[in-house]
Parts: sequence; structure tokens; C-alpha cells
Amino acid sequence: MAGNTFGKFFTLTTFGESHGKGLGGIVDGCPPGIKIDVELIQKELNRRRPGQSKLVTPRDEKDRIEILSGVFEGFSTGTPIAFAVMNADQRSNDYNELSKVFRPSHADYTYNEKYGIRDHRGGGRSSARETLARVAGGAIAKMILEQLGVSITAYVSQIGTVAVDKDYTSLNLLLTEENDVRCPDQDIAVKMIDEIKEAQVEGDSLGGIITCVIKGVPTGWGEPVFDRLQADFAKGMLSINAVKGFEYGSGFAGSAIKGSQHNDIFRPDPENPGKILFETNRAGGILGGISSGQDIYFRTAFKPVATIMREQTTVDKDGNEVKIHPGGRHDVCVVPRAVPIVEAMAALVLVDHYLRFQAYQKKFIK
Amino acid sequence: MAGNTFGKFFTLTTFGESHGKGLGGIVDGCPPGIKIDVELIQKELNRRRPGQSKLVTPRDEKDRIEILSGVFEGFSTGTPIAFAVMNADQRSNDYNELSKVFRPSHADYTYNEKYGIRDHRGGGRSSARETLARVAGGAIAKMILEQLGVSITAYVSQIGTVAVDKDYTSLNLLLTEENDVRCPDQDIAVKMIDEIKEAQVEGDSLGGIITCVIKGVPTGWGEPVFDRLQADFAKGMLSINAVKGFEYGSGFAGSAIKGSQHNDIFRPDPENPGKILFETNRAGGILGGISSGQDIYFRTAFKPVATIMREQTTVDKDGNEVKIHPGGRHDVCVVPRAVPIVEAMAALVLVDHYLRFQAYQKKFIK
Amino acid sequence: MAGNTFGKFFTLTTFGESHGKGLGGIVDGCPPGIKIDVELIQKELNRRRPGQSKLVTPRDEKDRIEILSGVFEGFSTGTPIAFAVMNADQRSNDYNELSKVFRPSHADYTYNEKYGIRDHRGGGRSSARETLARVAGGAIAKMILEQLGVSITAYVSQIGTVAVDKDYTSLNLLLTEENDVRCPDQDIAVKMIDEIKEAQVEGDSLGGIITCVIKGVPTGWGEPVFDRLQADFAKGMLSINAVKGFEYGSGFAGSAIKGSQHNDIFRPDPENPGKILFETNRAGGILGGISSGQDIYFRTAFKPVATIMREQTTVDKDGNEVKIHPGGRHDVCVVPRAVPIVEAMAALVLVDHYLRFQAYQKKFIK
Amino acid sequence: MAGNTFGKFFTLTTFGESHGKGLGGIVDGCPPGIKIDVELIQKELNRRRPGQSKLVTPRDEKDRIEILSGVFEGFSTGTPIAFAVMNADQRSNDYNELSKVFRPSHADYTYNEKYGIRDHRGGGRSSARETLARVAGGAIAKMILEQLGVSITAYVSQIGTVAVDKDYTSLNLLLTEENDVRCPDQDIAVKMIDEIKEAQVEGDSLGGIITCVIKGVPTGWGEPVFDRLQADFAKGMLSINAVKGFEYGSGFAGSAIKGSQHNDIFRPDPENPGKILFETNRAGGILGGISSGQDIYFRTAFKPVATIMREQTTVDKDGNEVKIHPGGRHDVCVVPRAVPIVEAMAALVLVDHYLRFQAYQKKFIK
Repeated sequence: MAGNTFGKFFTLTTFGESHGKGLGGIVDGCPPGIKIDVELIQKELNRRRPGQSKLVTPRDEKDRIEILSGVFEGFSTGTPIAFAVMNADQRSNDYNELSKVFRPSHADYTYNEKYGIRDHRGGGRSSARETLARVAGGAIAKMILEQLGVSITAYVSQIGTVAVDKDYTSLNLLLTEENDVRCPDQDIAVKMIDEIKEAQVEGDSLGGIITCVIKGVPTGWGEPVFDRLQADFAKGMLSINAVKGFEYGSGFAGSAIKGSQHNDIFRPDPENPGKILFETNRAGGILGGISSGQDIYFRTAFKPVATIMREQTTVDKDGNEVKIHPGGRHDVCVVPRAVPIVEAMAALVLVDHYLRFQAYQKKFIK
Repeated sequence: MAGNTFGKFFTLTTFGESHGKGLGGIVDGCPPGIKIDVELIQKELNRRRPGQSKLVTPRDEKDRIEILSGVFEGFSTGTPIAFAVMNADQRSNDYNELSKVFRPSHADYTYNEKYGIRDHRGGGRSSARETLARVAGGAIAKMILEQLGVSITAYVSQIGTVAVDKDYTSLNLLLTEENDVRCPDQDIAVKMIDEIKEAQVEGDSLGGIITCVIKGVPTGWGEPVFDRLQADFAKGMLSINAVKGFEYGSGFAGSAIKGSQHNDIFRPDPENPGKILFETNRAGGILGGISSGQDIYFRTAFKPVATIMREQTTVDKDGNEVKIHPGGRHDVCVVPRAVPIVEAMAALVLVDHYLRFQAYQKKFIK
Repeated sequence: MAGNTFGKFFTLTTFGESHGKGLGGIVDGCPPGIKIDVELIQKELNRRRPGQSKLVTPRDEKDRIEILSGVFEGFSTGTPIAFAVMNADQRSNDYNELSKVFRPSHADYTYNEKYGIRDHRGGGRSSARETLARVAGGAIAKMILEQLGVSITAYVSQIGTVAVDKDYTSLNLLLTEENDVRCPDQDIAVKMIDEIKEAQVEGDSLGGIITCVIKGVPTGWGEPVFDRLQADFAKGMLSINAVKGFEYGSGFAGSAIKGSQHNDIFRPDPENPGKILFETNRAGGILGGISSGQDIYFRTAFKPVATIMREQTTVDKDGNEVKIHPGGRHDVCVVPRAVPIVEAMAALVLVDHYLRFQAYQKKFIK
Repeated sequence: MAGNTFGKFFTLTTFGESHGKGLGGIVDGCPPGIKIDVELIQKELNRRRPGQSKLVTPRDEKDRIEILSGVFEGFSTGTPIAFAVMNADQRSNDYNELSKVFRPSHADYTYNEKYGIRDHRGGGRSSARETLARVAGGAIAKMILEQLGVSITAYVSQIGTVAVDKDYTSLNLLLTEENDVRCPDQDIAVKMIDEIKEAQVEGDSLGGIITCVIKGVPTGWGEPVFDRLQADFAKGMLSINAVKGFEYGSGFAGSAIKGSQHNDIFRPDPENPGKILFETNRAGGILGGISSGQDIYFRTAFKPVATIMREQTTVDKDGNEVKIHPGGRHDVCVVPRAVPIVEAMAALVLVDHYLRFQAYQKKFIK
């Protein structure tokens, strides 16, 4: 329990370093009878993969996934589903210079202090390549959610200083995958691409914000007090590399609104007597930690990539000042590639809470 | 495991409803030999208590805490520390009208849908009175942290539209408790108080933001991947009633900054050869999920109180439209009272990670 | 997580020392809508209580239980159920002499070495009085199981050298509570009582064995691999004070039987076409860690009470030889009083696995 | 959390089916700096492997292990250690006949009822081949224990009706690996081999008992109440395929001994003033759930192998009576091969408790 397992009922335990033999994970708690489509998992991995467009690093990692257990004749059996992606390229020599240097705003320093030993190649376990296993596990979670009528769609709502100025309800989220930055507002997408190209010329990097929208969650998922649905989403998001913030519903802006303006008013559903409608959804689809049946939506903030194409001053293990300048090519902005990661973590949280909901269901209520 | 336990190694399990017999909890995993000062716990509870000032509700809950186990001759013994606060006032009749009504932006509706049965009196388990047990558990955590040289100070940095415009490093945090709104900037505090008074006249309510600053955490606390220090802080904060957002270090604003401006540069410490300094702390004291030895700081956003002193339209259990108008007196803004809750959750996270750090420490590194 | 929580989905977290303020616990994960009958819990506690008969210690602990939360108008609400038994008698002076002495085969020595501080009064946390909270938590679990048609009956099958020589299927378990030793074989019960009286005269103590029979568990409870049903029963039983062994089904004796004699043969159920019968039940109702629908039965071995009414030589904290002779009156044999504890731990295991079964049920199987 | 993870701090999560792509696991919580010797892991796997001697099945599974992560330049890095053994032979046709038949005393029936779908090939997840991952994980745990001076030695003390009649203290445990049945008493070993040969001729199978002896555990490991050291050993042992019972120290036989005979008397250590000696060790090295510093020893009972080389009557999925007769060659007695499994589970329990001990150590005791 050194932090490599996510979830309580539906768990994903991951392993792997950037330049070790491989990366992967074990999903435990998958209900039996789910169709496990390996190509769908691969498709999700491809969305996360570097080299998808001219905007991101052209290094082709390939990342072919293999399922090792838990699936029989195409369906989950209820036993653990293990999967692995072997690292094709383990050339560690490229990284020898990094073995003694602490890159600014990377985890080199803290790993070194914490463990006293580290696999420095490509950042080792702290590399964002680790998120590959989350995307694969999340893809399995999505297959369960699909059976339950739940859909998750994330999109890029800000890159650097360019932000979408519309609510998700005013956007056509089906357009998200239509451009290289995964922004459903095509005009803003063009500006984001310009922002990235400009930063690329400068050898600089950019951060951004991802908005995630979840539809179809019925009322009742989420446990009150410590395991509120939003608390688990927040944990999932803040566990992703480079994430600095999370807000759901009205978020930080909601702090400045008065109660009379913020409250979501209930009213009778004219078409379904005895049923209830919400006039608004500042709550973000969660009340008291429990899903309300409305759309769930939240935003996740990413800092700019720490590796920049410029010389930087830093220190080595012995405390001497050194200068570094990364070789190769690196992403200017990873936020578009983080879209499937956000979706994956959201899916893991939801299946976990779906199972908890199932466990404690109202069987004994007369 | 229906969500009432927080932490993995150092756990707080809580119980209690607003108008039941009592509230309390069990702290498991407290190391032996910690001086447990009941009066200090009581003092923290008093900071959370309603009726501390004219700005908050004058109902005096008293809330005397009693330790039931785990402490012998004033010191922790390593066995579970249970504590309880009995509810002096269990007059449930005041709340009879709420048994069939769903108050807007409260948890009445989702509890009803999830459980099919609920203790409606004062919100039952969904009442913010539940946080009392967090403050008591957090007070015990603080006693451990004090032995380790770690301090936690939270303060109100925004109420409604009035915000502190300075960094925490420019404030004298010792002044936080000097005014009713727990804002260390005395000029802003006056404006916040005016904002609250104005909202009170209008029968409205306000939200706000709390900033939390942690000093003295050594390098190495926090587990990489899923149990990053920031992920657990985020979970802790988002588990508090009315919280809508969390950000640490540069936060959401960091998304708009370029990498070259955002990176925290290392340099040799001129006074301690071989040691390292950071030029800046946009990271917020955490790198790769592990404490870096710098100050940790984060911000938590609260929505305005859902209960307002005005008539509101809503629905009852049967889906009929009804009008509600709360009796009694309620807080216009709970954010000042939430300061000890934020500190408590932060303390629980830190002790949990301190113990994990202890467990896996570098004993085998030559 | 210092070992005071039992279960994964349905959890019991306990607290309390023999002579502290009180003992109790929190049940988390109780489904809503269960009728919680306090008098039934009290009745179970009374079965565990000293002073029930002339054979056990006449000290009347009373042990009135109070429910503090989670129950509304007599039914569980799905929120944590906390309960406490306050210690009427906290006269610690009786135990002052024990503060520096390590009683043979008690936990005084290991607690002292592990914690460096301990509440020595009556054994503190290591006292068997701790099991009171298990019985209360188990009573709640039994109320859930009753709704599911599951019954648990334990009885004393051996005391000292006197053993029941019949299988549980040849006994009328309804007679268990008819005598002071909780043995349904009335002839053997008389011999057991004689054995106890004889040991009492000698100032000696006795151990024994408890058999537990569970009826009504449907096929499918229990998780394969590590959380097999029998593994969790074994853990639950070995966590009880003084327990030295556990066996289920054919148990240790099964090791000497050949496969052709040991296998339980399936045959078609003549009365229910398509259904299956077992010819025998050497498996003990569990196959591959999963309940088979047959009766579950197991045996738990208790060592003799460590406290004897004779002078014993031992050492004090400083390593000096001392002589001890307990004052007051102590049980010669606690095995009859352990019957409700065995049942309680079995009930906790079963509800935990019932909820897990619910969570992962075959919803997706076509 | 469907039961495929063992441990709380030091966790092993396993995956794999008998005839799927492969089996393996992830060890999380391994401290950094442990030398991970792959050949030692392989050696342990070889001890578990079928085909080691003429007495066990000659099918050569090979089972080459590969480490996928968490080890850098031969040492653990503190990140998860994943390992896999690929299945060389996935010929599933051999098992087609088993897809619809429930073998007596196997898990076919309960898996089918629980999941509604199952990988029937070779028993799938319920195959004893699953224990391979335990042995690999346990081998890593042993490497940690070796650094701490703790050794674990298990041996076969009974096969069928042939039992060692001596205490472990009278045996030379170094002789355990000298014969095919892993019994250190060479005379008894010969009789056991005869017993196996005889059963083989009859087409029958045998069970047995394994004794496990642990030396070098210091005082203080184990958490009181639910996570007693013996409770976790019991859980670990009863989670192994075919295990029917567990006892430690005096065990079941201890139930018949009087307290005056059973108590282990302390006395001053004449050679180390202030230190303490035990005159006997009926406690089995554990007092109050905490290690006492004495040897820990326990016994684990295995039922005879369910697969026998004779025709048996059983039923198929549709409830029809069928006759089965296994093809190929199967072990008459797996108990000798289970010796490394028992050691592995014991090692996993011990490292888990070592880390917990580390976490809560007496740092704050003055």
C-alpha cells in the first residue's frame, strides 16, 4: 500500500517505469460478463500516446497492450484482469546525464530524498508514461459504465491564456476529437493551436484546463462524509501528473455568489407527476456527496510541462550548480493528451461507487 | 466501509447525527507516548462552534468532548482513542416540517433517494455538525505533528467578493484569530465583516475561500502515483460540506503561465555546502506527490450556505411544490468556522503520510 | 489501521480498555432499513457476561449498551451505528500491583515491549472484556443475516478432556442454552460441569473447543484466492483472545483420509430436476473459498485461562523474580462465555461477504 | 477488492489462470534498497513446481519468472515490483470435457454459481497453479526478512496416516530438503514415500500437515485485537488451496491441558540481568497477538487432492449424472510442494507486520 492502488471496491493497481521492461496493471473487482474489447482499450491508449499530431512529440511509443488474465472468450470472468505494455525502447544511455541531476519542477529531487535510490531513466516511475496504465484500467471501467448508460466526455477548455468562454451545455462535445487540441469549440481550437506553435518557437511550454462532463449517473452513487463522490474525483484528478487544481459545479467562482443566487431550486416535473426537476445545476450533479441524477461536471487544472527546450540552471546530487538542456523533442503542451487520462480516472471513481451502491442497496427498505 | 473512515494508516472513523444522541469518532493508529491534552481538543472544537461571535449563529451548542479510551495518565497508549460529544439538545420537533421537504441545495433529496430512510432532524448525518468529529480527530493529529515540528495555519482569504490580494508570505498569520472572520489582513477583515452584515440584512448567505499553510514538513512524505500528498489533501478538502474546489501551489492560475516562468529553479545553498535551495515555490511544496521540504500551501473554495433567511420555493417528497422559510437563526457565512475543519483534515492527511513514511523508511539503503 | 477494524465492506471498529471510561465500537456499512433491536444486542451481551452461572465469575459487570447513532425510529439509516458500554466500576487500585508485573501467558509483557506504555488495569486493551464490542457488533450483523435467512449456532463441544463424540448433525442445537456450559449434549454437559468444578477446587483452569454451525448461506459468498470464506473465518476466530486453532469441514482429521473417501460426490436432485445434491459435506460448506449452499461448520480451540487461583512465579518489569497470586474470583473456564463471541465474529464475516456478493453480482451475465 | 490482494502495508496482488496467457503479481510497499535476486525467486518457484521428483507429476511447467518493474540495477527502488510467468502450454482442448462438468470437491460448481461464466481450462483461477504468484511474492518478502535476521522453515510433518512424532525442536530442519517429501525425519520420510507409492497404485490421493517454524522475530510485531499475528497467519494459511485447518503453539491439543500446565513461566535471564526468559513456549511465540521474541511455530492441515486416478460419479451443468476419469498424470500428494507456499504466505504476513511495527514505533516514548 505504497500508493499504487486506486479505488476500494473496483481497484486498479499499476506498475512500471518509463524505461523499464514494461508498464501495466491489475484491475480487481470487475463484474463478470462484461465484454472486454482489447481494441477499444488500445484506442484509448492511442489517444494518450505521444506522436498523435504535429503538436505533440513525434516519438512513436507504439504501446501495444496485452491482456494476461481475467478474460475468457471475450468476456470478463470476475477474476483479476492483468494487462501489460512492454517497453519497446529501453535505451537508457540517452538518460545517463540525468542520473545525477535534479531537473527543475520534476520529481527527481524528492524521489532521491525519499528512496535514496531511483531509476532515473526518463523519470522512472515519476514519468507521465505511468498514466498509460490508468488509461487502460479506465477503458475497462468505461466498458462497465456503458452497460449502465453512463458516458464520460472530457475536453480541453483552456490552453495557456486561451480559454473557451462558453458553458459545456453550449458546446457540441461530439466535436472534441475533431482537432489536435481536443477542444470542441473550433474557433478557440485554432487559437489554442497558435498559442502552442508560438510557445514551441520560444522553446517554452504551456499548461491548461480540462473540463469533464458525465451523463447518465443515477441518483444515489457516492458515500457521505469522507468518500463523497466529489472527494474521490478530486483525489483521482490530483493524482495525475502536473495537476494543480480541481473544482466541480460552480467551483471557485461559486465562492463569490450569494446563496439566493447559488441555490438550485427544485420544482415538480410537469411531465412526470411525483418526480422532481432542478432549475439549475450549480451543484455539479452532486448533493451531500451523492449523485443527484443531474449531469456531473468538473474542471482540472494542469501546470505547464516542466521540461522546456531551453537551457536551465539547476543543481546536481552533490549540490553543484549545473546547466541542462534537454535533447530530443518534447511536448509543448500535454493537456490534449491528458483528456483520456481525466476520463479514465473519472471512470475508475464511478465504477467504484457503482459497486458500493450495489453492495448497500435498499434491499431491506419496505 | 460506507465512507465514514478517513486515512489508511492513521484512521479517523466518525459517527453521529445532528440531533441524535451524540457525535464522535475513533482514532486508530496513534503512536504511543503522545500527550493528549483534552483542553486543546476542546479549544479546537470551540473554534468550530456556532455562537463564537455576533457574526455567526448564537445558538450555544456547548459540545463538551469526552475521551473514552486509549489515553492513560494523559498519554496515548497506542490503542484506539474514542471520543464523543453528547447532544445536549435533541428537540426534534423543531424539524418535523423538514421530514417531508427537500431543501434546495441540501442533501435531503439525495439521502432520501439513496437510503429510502433518513434522520431528517437538522439534516441528520448530512449536517455540518458532523465536522465536529473531524476537528476532534484533527486536534489529536496536530499533537503528533507538533512533536515533529510541523505547524498548520489556515485563514480566510475571501468572503463573497472581498478577497485578500496578498500572498500568504506577506501576511502575519499570527493575526488570524484576532478578528471574527479569521482573516490576518485586518483591513480586509473589516470589509469582510461589512459584506457579512450586508448579506445578513438581506437574509442572504455567503461563501468564501480558505488558504492553508503548512510549515516544517520534511522532504519525503507522500506516496507517488495515486496517494500523492496533494491528492489526499484534495480528497480531505472536498470531503468537507460545501467545498467546491481545491488548488495548491500555483493552482488554476498556473495553467496560464509558461513553463519558463513556472519552473522553480534549484540552486546551491551558499550557507550549507552540498544542500539545495529553491528560488521559488510555485510547486506548493510538493514535487511528484512527495513533500519537497518547502512550505505546503493550498486553497479551498466554499459555496454560500444553502439555508437562507428568505422564503424559497421547493418540493416535498411527493413531488408537490411547497414554500419554505427557515425558523431560528442561521449562519450567514460559515467560512470562518471552517478554518479549524480545514486544518483538521490537513493534519489527518499529514499524520497518515508521516506514518507511511516511517513504515517504508530508507533502512536498507547503504 | 492499528488492527482495531474488522471487515472490508461491513466494518466494525472497536475501542476501550477493561477499566477505562467505556468500551464500544462503530459499525459502518450497515444497509438501511434493518430493524435494530437494542434488547437483542443486550441479550447477546448478557450471554458473554461474567456471572451468568455458578460456574463463572460472579462479578456482575452489568454492561448496559447504548446506541449513539445510525438508528432512527428503530431502523438503521445506512449511516454509522456507534454504541458504547460505560464501565461502571473503574476501581483501578485493585490492579496497582499488576502495573510492574508480567503475568505468565498474558499480554502484559508484549504490550509493554511494543508500546512502552500500557494501561495495566485489568489487562487494559488486552482484556477479554474487549470482546464485548465484538458481540454487540455481531448482534447487528445477525439482524441483517436473519433477514437473509441465515442462522448461526455455536456450542461447546469440548471442555478440558471432556468432548462431545457426536457430529453436529446428531445433536439438537436448540438445547445449547439449556445448561451452564452451552453443550447441547446434556450427558456430556454434566461431565463438563464436573470437570470445571474439579478444576475450581484445584485452583486451576480449563480450555475447550467451540463448534459453530451456519445454515442458510446461499451459494456464492466468499471471494476466491486470498479472501476465501474460510480464510476470513479463520482470521476472525484467531483474533479472539485465547484461541489457538481453527479447522473447518473435515479439518485436521481430513489430512489422514484418502481422496476417494474424502471427496463429496455430487448427484442429481431427484426432486428438483436440473438441481444438484451433495452426498456428504466434508468440505464444510465451502468450495474454492465460496459457499456451496451446504451447512458451513468449523471448530475453534481455546487454551485454558491464563489466570489461575494458585501462586505462580514470574518476573517484574525490572527482571526480578516475583510471586503472584490473583485476588478476587476468576473464571475457571471461559469457553461457554465465548460461544456468543464465536457467533459474533462469524456473523461479521458473513455480512461482509454478503455485501461483496451484492456488489459484484451477476448483473451483466446474459 | 475482489480478494486478490493480500496484506495491508506490504501487499501482493495476483492474477492469472491455469491455462491463460500467464500468471503473476504486483508487490507494493517493498522498501527501497533490497537486493532482489531473480534466481532466488526462481529457486522458490522450482520448489513449488510439479515434476520435481518421481513422486509428483512429471509434467514440466518450467515457469520462468520475469521481473517487469521496481528493480533497478539489482535493487528494489520502493516502487511496485511486478512479475509474470507466461504459460508455455495453453492447450485448452485437453480440458474441453471439463467445461460442463463439476468435478467433486473442486471449485467448478461454486465458481459457476457465483460468476455465471468461468475459464474451465485446468480449473482456471481456482487451480493451485495460482499459488505460483504467492511463492514469487513471498520470495521477495523473504529477502527483506533475511536483512532483518528472520528465517522461515516449513516441513512436512504428516502425510496420510504417517506422522512425525517429534517436536520441531528435536529435528534437524536443515535436512528438510534432503528427500522428496520434505520431511526432516529421514525414517518417517521413508514411510511417507511408501504411503504415497501405495496410494499411487490405488489411484488414490493423500493429504497431510505442514509445520512452519519462524526464528528471529523480535518482540513487538503484530497488532492487538483483530490483526493479531496469529490471525493473519491463519488467514494466510486458510487462503491456500486445500487447507482445512490451522493451529499455533499448543493448538487444539492445548484445549485439553490445564492452565497450571499450559502457562509459560517467565524467569530472570541469569546471563542478562534485567532481561527475561521463558521456561516453555506453548504460546507459540505470540502473546496477545504480538510476537514475544520466542520461536513462532504453527501447523497447517491439507485435505487429500480432489483429483484421483479413478472413475468418479458426478453431475454436469444441466444436473445430469456423468462419470469422469481424469486423463494425464496428477499428484498423489501435493503437500511436499506446498511447503514453499506455506513459507511464502508466512513471509508476506511477517513483512506486513514489520512495516506496521516500523510505522508506529516508540518514537515518542521518553
